[in-house]
Amino acid sequence: MENPKAYIFDVFGTVVDWRNGVAKVCAETFAQKGLSFDPHEFADLWRGEYQPAMERIRSGSRGYVPLDLLHYENLERILENTGLASQFTASEKSELNRAWEQLPGWPDSSPGLYTLKQQAIIAPCSNGSIALMTRIAKFADLPWDCIVGAEIAQNYKPHPDAYLKSAHALGLSPGEVMMVAAHNEDLHAARENGLKTAFIPRKTEYGTGQTKDLEPNDDWDLVVGSLLQISRYRK
Amino acid sequence: MENPKAYIFDVFGTVVDWRNGVAKVCAETFAQKGLSFDPHEFADLWRGEYQPAMERIRSGSRGYVPLDLLHYENLERILENTGLASQFTASEKSELNRAWEQLPGWPDSSPGLYTLKQQAIIAPCSNGSIALMTRIAKFADLPWDCIVGAEIAQNYKPHPDAYLKSAHALGLSPGEVMMVAAHNEDLHAARENGLKTAFIPRKTEYGTGQTKDLEPNDDWDLVVGSLLQISRYRK
Repeated sequence: MENPKAYIFDVFGTVVDWRNGVAKVCAETFAQKGLSFDPHEFADLWRGEYQPAMERIRSGSRGYVPLDLLHYENLERILENTGLASQFTASEKSELNRAWEQLPGWPDSSPGLYTLKQQAIIAPCSNGSIALMTRIAKFADLPWDCIVGAEIAQNYKPHPDAYLKSAHALGLSPGEVMMVAAHNEDLHAARENGLKTAFIPRKTEYGTGQTKDLEPNDDWDLVVGSLLQISRYRK
Repeated sequence: MENPKAYIFDVFGTVVDWRNGVAKVCAETFAQKGLSFDPHEFADLWRGEYQPAMERIRSGSRGYVPLDLLHYENLERILENTGLASQFTASEKSELNRAWEQLPGWPDSSPGLYTLKQQAIIAPCSNGSIALMTRIAKFADLPWDCIVGAEIAQNYKPHPDAYLKSAHALGLSPGEVMMVAAHNEDLHAARENGLKTAFIPRKTEYGTGQTKDLEPNDDWDLVVGSLLQISRYRK
């Protein structure tokens, strides 16, 4: 296999631990308000609205809006469903929505990216916006060379545009780019669009009872246990 | 003045020395071919086609195409005009066009950006594409947090879109963003669109006989002699 000229990364789950990050900010916010709702349950409910919200855009029934807005709308829905809506002003909801900017990297993420950056272009190919990816990178010390993904493509993964327009923005053909993800579905879509694929299991992304994406479900070009291992596979 | 939340930078001339960078690659290429054309004169001719090529897009008579393509078209024109066209194959022209990816930073650029990155978001707001900015950043060690500018805006500076859509992509209002440039015209446009402004003279960008942009021609919010000085003006 030729060395990829760029590695593009799923971020939520693959590079950062969104569940504990969101739950931490929710826990602090709920404590300040004297609310007793379980913060991990709240994070799971919030994330549960993620795919349906994007699907309306992928299907064409809604034009592209950045994930920050979808997160905000989803937060409003979850606050209604949990009976907490009356406890939050609009500005408090906007502040809570910034939980998604405060996501810690997995222990190997930052050092793995610093190492790989010496050898190739590295960039997020996430459904998060440029603004959101920029702030997560600051928070988790992720030394991206640039940011591609949903906002560049004006569409959400796994729509083909998200992969093809990202490769194009890098000035590369799809086959020169490797998609790195903890989610088999993301890699299936990347491969269908001609990208190389690397799987890294993140077995506690959804907590200790996680049942999906524990193992690769296809013959991905690379399977690694840590982002630090990727550079070892270069010739 | 409130501290800017992000600093966005003109790149060609402000952060990198395009003229000596392009001339160096041209000199090497011409030497290999036994051509005696002056490489700095060639760089100046090539850059001379820059504004007319973008103006066709700013005026709406041509849709957005990335600067890499304009550079290639301009190269073909200059090779014709100088009688050198027959000396270059298409792939050799593509290779020479990559001169724009190999531009050295001014001595203060990389250390200045590393310092400022600790305090705020830093990003290029250049007419160069994401692909081009990514490669220049690798070459000159420019630690951008993300890349905004012409490709995000799908239009070229000084069109208002280039500034307003860049601020929007950062999740900020124009007044929260400071534009840093060695060109007064760039800052006039940035100010008209509500951005803060910082001028840094680069008195040899066009060689030792430079006559323009030697001094600020308006009361810019900041005037500095080195990118290392910007962080000193934060409260």
